[in-house]
Amino acid sequence: MTVRVGVIGTGMIGQDHIRRITEVLPGGQVAAVTDVDISRAGQVAAGLPGVRLHQTGQDLIADSDVDAVLVTSWGATHEEYVLAAIAAGKRVFCEKPLAPTAEGAMRIVEAEMAAGRRLVQVGFMRRYDPGYNALKDALDAGQAGTPLLMHCAHRNPSVPPYGFTTDMLISDSAVHEIDLVRWLFDEEIAAASVLRPRPTSRASEGVQDPLVVLLEMASGILVDVEVFVNAGYGYDIRAEVVGEAGTLALADAGGVTVVQQGRRSGRVPADWRERFGRAFDAEFTDWLLAVAAGTTTGPGSWDGYAAALVTDQCLRALHTGSRVAVTMPERPDFYAKVQE
Amino acid sequence: MTVRVGVIGTGMIGQDHIRRITEVLPGGQVAAVTDVDISRAGQVAAGLPGVRLHQTGQDLIADSDVDAVLVTSWGATHEEYVLAAIAAGKRVFCEKPLAPTAEGAMRIVEAEMAAGRRLVQVGFMRRYDPGYNALKDALDAGQAGTPLLMHCAHRNPSVPPYGFTTDMLISDSAVHEIDLVRWLFDEEIAAASVLRPRPTSRASEGVQDPLVVLLEMASGILVDVEVFVNAGYGYDIRAEVVGEAGTLALADAGGVTVVQQGRRSGRVPADWRERFGRAFDAEFTDWLLAVAAGTTTGPGSWDGYAAALVTDQCLRALHTGSRVAVTMPERPDFYAKVQE
Amino acid sequence: MTVRVGVIGTGMIGQDHIRRITEVLPGGQVAAVTDVDISRAGQVAAGLPGVRLHQTGQDLIADSDVDAVLVTSWGATHEEYVLAAIAAGKRVFCEKPLAPTAEGAMRIVEAEMAAGRRLVQVGFMRRYDPGYNALKDALDAGQAGTPLLMHCAHRNPSVPPYGFTTDMLISDSAVHEIDLVRWLFDEEIAAASVLRPRPTSRASEGVQDPLVVLLEMASGILVDVEVFVNAGYGYDIRAEVVGEAGTLALADAGGVTVVQQGRRSGRVPADWRERFGRAFDAEFTDWLLAVAAGTTTGPGSWDGYAAALVTDQCLRALHTGSRVAVTMPERPDFYAKVQE
Amino acid sequence: MTVRVGVIGTGMIGQDHIRRITEVLPGGQVAAVTDVDISRAGQVAAGLPGVRLHQTGQDLIADSDVDAVLVTSWGATHEEYVLAAIAAGKRVFCEKPLAPTAEGAMRIVEAEMAAGRRLVQVGFMRRYDPGYNALKDALDAGQAGTPLLMHCAHRNPSVPPYGFTTDMLISDSAVHEIDLVRWLFDEEIAAASVLRPRPTSRASEGVQDPLVVLLEMASGILVDVEVFVNAGYGYDIRAEVVGEAGTLALADAGGVTVVQQGRRSGRVPADWRERFGRAFDAEFTDWLLAVAAGTTTGPGSWDGYAAALVTDQCLRALHTGSRVAVTMPERPDFYAKVQE
Repeated sequence: MTVRVGVIGTGMIGQDHIRRITEVLPGGQVAAVTDVDISRAGQVAAGLPGVRLHQTGQDLIADSDVDAVLVTSWGATHEEYVLAAIAAGKRVFCEKPLAPTAEGAMRIVEAEMAAGRRLVQVGFMRRYDPGYNALKDALDAGQAGTPLLMHCAHRNPSVPPYGFTTDMLISDSAVHEIDLVRWLFDEEIAAASVLRPRPTSRASEGVQDPLVVLLEMASGILVDVEVFVNAGYGYDIRAEVVGEAGTLALADAGGVTVVQQGRRSGRVPADWRERFGRAFDAEFTDWLLAVAAGTTTGPGSWDGYAAALVTDQCLRALHTGSRVAVTMPERPDFYAKVQE
Repeated sequence: MTVRVGVIGTGMIGQDHIRRITEVLPGGQVAAVTDVDISRAGQVAAGLPGVRLHQTGQDLIADSDVDAVLVTSWGATHEEYVLAAIAAGKRVFCEKPLAPTAEGAMRIVEAEMAAGRRLVQVGFMRRYDPGYNALKDALDAGQAGTPLLMHCAHRNPSVPPYGFTTDMLISDSAVHEIDLVRWLFDEEIAAASVLRPRPTSRASEGVQDPLVVLLEMASGILVDVEVFVNAGYGYDIRAEVVGEAGTLALADAGGVTVVQQGRRSGRVPADWRERFGRAFDAEFTDWLLAVAAGTTTGPGSWDGYAAALVTDQCLRALHTGSRVAVTMPERPDFYAKVQE
Repeated sequence: MTVRVGVIGTGMIGQDHIRRITEVLPGGQVAAVTDVDISRAGQVAAGLPGVRLHQTGQDLIADSDVDAVLVTSWGATHEEYVLAAIAAGKRVFCEKPLAPTAEGAMRIVEAEMAAGRRLVQVGFMRRYDPGYNALKDALDAGQAGTPLLMHCAHRNPSVPPYGFTTDMLISDSAVHEIDLVRWLFDEEIAAASVLRPRPTSRASEGVQDPLVVLLEMASGILVDVEVFVNAGYGYDIRAEVVGEAGTLALADAGGVTVVQQGRRSGRVPADWRERFGRAFDAEFTDWLLAVAAGTTTGPGSWDGYAAALVTDQCLRALHTGSRVAVTMPERPDFYAKVQE
Repeated sequence: MTVRVGVIGTGMIGQDHIRRITEVLPGGQVAAVTDVDISRAGQVAAGLPGVRLHQTGQDLIADSDVDAVLVTSWGATHEEYVLAAIAAGKRVFCEKPLAPTAEGAMRIVEAEMAAGRRLVQVGFMRRYDPGYNALKDALDAGQAGTPLLMHCAHRNPSVPPYGFTTDMLISDSAVHEIDLVRWLFDEEIAAASVLRPRPTSRASEGVQDPLVVLLEMASGILVDVEVFVNAGYGYDIRAEVVGEAGTLALADAGGVTVVQQGRRSGRVPADWRERFGRAFDAEFTDWLLAVAAGTTTGPGSWDGYAAALVTDQCLRALHTGSRVAVTMPERPDFYAKVQE
């Protein structure tokens, strides 16, 4: 069965996923598109024979030729479309965030539970990265012993000069590590603090960049995350878990080692596409297979809710300068692991 | 258009490519299979709904529901099937070797030229490896200056205890480097020698392992290839180009760095599937796209012939202990690069 | 001129420095020794022809055949001997800490200023490590741009099962990073916090290991230091400076890369002797040359005082769980850099 | 006892060793100097209080205030001075080559045997390099299993524009690997060949650079050495031993990793001083200790002879283009290892 996907949001990431479904992966095809900028959606549709153009997300979701929905629109609109897909009984893949606030994410959780089956996957693609998976495998195999600490760095070469606020270092960037550590350690985050190092002069006026986010896991594991979105030199994602018996770290990428003019050097990825391209491919392969099989896989609504809740508390920690405890409700049986 | 592929040869590598076409890549489906062991082919067909089972390769090639042919049978049978596919006017992907001898490969070249269009791709997957491609890009960008030397190592953890002869270190293993350096430097191999280092005690009786193959390119670039098929520790492919201004080398794979008990370590691939899985994926994606578009890409019959000719001369060098010159006929215009 | 050194304290580190002066470096000889355990000092003296044994540190300092004094006794006794050496007008090298408290260190500062010339060097050997020096050179050359953050890890394989308290993770271990960052960034530490990650089960009862120490430099640079003294796997010192334009990190040590059984691995130092042996050599060479020349070099009393003051505030931060500001008095002109 | 050293030859390397004895190492002092350029020797002497200037090497050797002799003059003069030192019964350290030909080296061997005790150390400093020693330790510990192959690269950034001939790639550069592999594998070299890769355009007119030297050890281990003296980018010494069970390679130097503008890079040494400074220090420490103790250590006349003999045969191989067998006389008991 080929999954017929409807895409809501044909901006940069939407187009990248359309390319993925169309040219890279088996098992899916794009059946319909829409966008708040309908002319942009029209251009995209024009380049894809047989793809229908819808005026609204609601129309697209209602289309009987759409088996499953991909939400890659602006974050503030995610909740509405995911709720509509659930109401229509269609599986939906939603780029992060699931909703801009924990309250919104909880409404999705409640709707999905009311619907009686899991329909939602959230776009935390790092769970599909070969490096992180090798790290998790080694951790689960006990190669570092019991984990105690984790050091992370999340560095972007740059962000758009306008509109990228200090809050977005948390909600757009650190949110990936927030989900990641929940998955990696298989436990919840219990508290958060945010530190303000000396700011770079290369950020936009008024933006505090970098930040250091401290996450305390329920077991006491302490995670520090350097978030630096104007790092300039490249897209660099670092992670090191320190355990009782050893450490586990993401290794540098492969490729080619160049020796020239007194330096032996390797490449740093230029952007998230280069760094996480394989993760996105694996993520969508997994989703399309699950949709075709009528099952659910990967991070779901509950993970989207948990990430939103911790993000909210990190923002409180950022604004107050204090450590903020996270009170996570108990995970409903509906979202128990075994179901995945 | 979905390319309907007929597969001749359902052994280990045939099954791996069937999995690739069926589960990993877009654009293709397996339409028919056959194998010299017809019961094995039957089992494979049984697991793939809608796939037809043929008694012979000739029947499969003649099947009007087969758009293109994949030859993954025993090497000695390649020539026959490729010639039949050409005769039927169907595009064919043939695992290396194109033919066991240069004479056989030349018969394919002549048949293809007589047919008037290029139909054959040969399975030199290293040309699709991201590492080698990064190396070629850096070389072509002049990052090492004019190339002078290349050091290669081709190490397998082990080979089957029976039937793997000393000759096969050349014809099965070094043949990959033979094709690779032609592609990398875009020139022909002019001479070859083979050296016999101290043999490992872990090879089968009578097998000289490792060997060192010396290839002299037309421009004078000297390539040394250590071929070691019972290296034990893993599947390790090394390459370093030395140029007038610097060097370029394949970097170690990424993954996870483990620090434990006084050692900081990274993983060596376990086998060719782990090392070249992405290369195989890219190779088949490219082939299926080309077939769908009615074009030809990748290494073709002429490359298969050139590799067979150099392999023959390396075997002569191995048996005589002398340096052997390679007299390569001029590349016909039919196989000019621009056509690719 | 050969500098005649009197050694107070012939324990493990004292004996290591005696070996260094006697067998490794030019320019010095051991003239006299003493120890609180006089029989141990006697044994050491017996092995060194011509070396005098003194009953007390005061006697040793008074010995006219002692040109300069090396204090490697128990930390609590350092202040007394350094003050006595200053009173005797002799140059003195004191292992860290200069004094167990900031008050004690300040008494040394005042005595030295009263004496009118700088006589004291403190044993912060990391300032002489080739790796840290390469890092500082690259930083000063602007290779990372303006520094914003620094990540450090200070890992010992183990500490003695008795007597090593949680406080000592600060006063014995982190004190090295405290001095180091003052030297590296050439500015003072303005505040400190201490975090308590999940503790390892391999530490002695009641000891919180690891800790994370956060140091805020006057300019806002934020330094995080993981201190983990029962890390098990080896002696591992990591440092990464993150600047506006790039990062600078201590590289792994050289030696030999072993590839075996599927792993490519390098050695982690076993202990501080292996890791910092060259730094100790360079430090003592520098000191002996300065003593011979009648000058002063390296970290002095003021640095010892500053380290003691920050250590005190880190201990307050550890005990209170709060961020503690450090109020550093202005550096007297007497200790201005130019004098060094 | 302080060893009083007389230095014959005050050029670049002589001055570097004088600095080493005077400023870096314990146990020695420079007592006298001479040079074929007597004014240069006079300038060196003027900078070293108490050092005597001699008009000839013979005078210096005869000086009763000279305990031991260091020969760092032009290679062609080594034999004469070493023979004179032996005749005077004085220990002598001779930079490589011991003599420009095997015949000359054999005259030294015979003179030393006639004198009845070993007095000569030859300056093969790589035997003292920490990296090579770690490699040898790992090899001897069986970490790679039985060795089968070795790959070496010996790259200089450049050589003087005049006077550096193709022969000198063997006699000045590869001679280090020739000695090294005898020491590393503890066996003799049985045959040699020399290959001529495409030459760099950056060498002087008429100089074939790089070369590849193939050395066959008595046990069959095959060593390939790329010698490239105009490599441009830095001073880079690579070595990898391939054994039945794994490989052992010199690791990259430590220092600092710089991440900047999309590249993660480490430093390549700029020259032999940077790369082998520690090896020279260890070599001279060892020699001075041995002289003071009246014993002999390190590579001796026999090693100098063996290196000269193999060098001669490599030059024959270079000139004839053929493989040349090396017929090494049996090692006299006088030079048995146990004596060292």
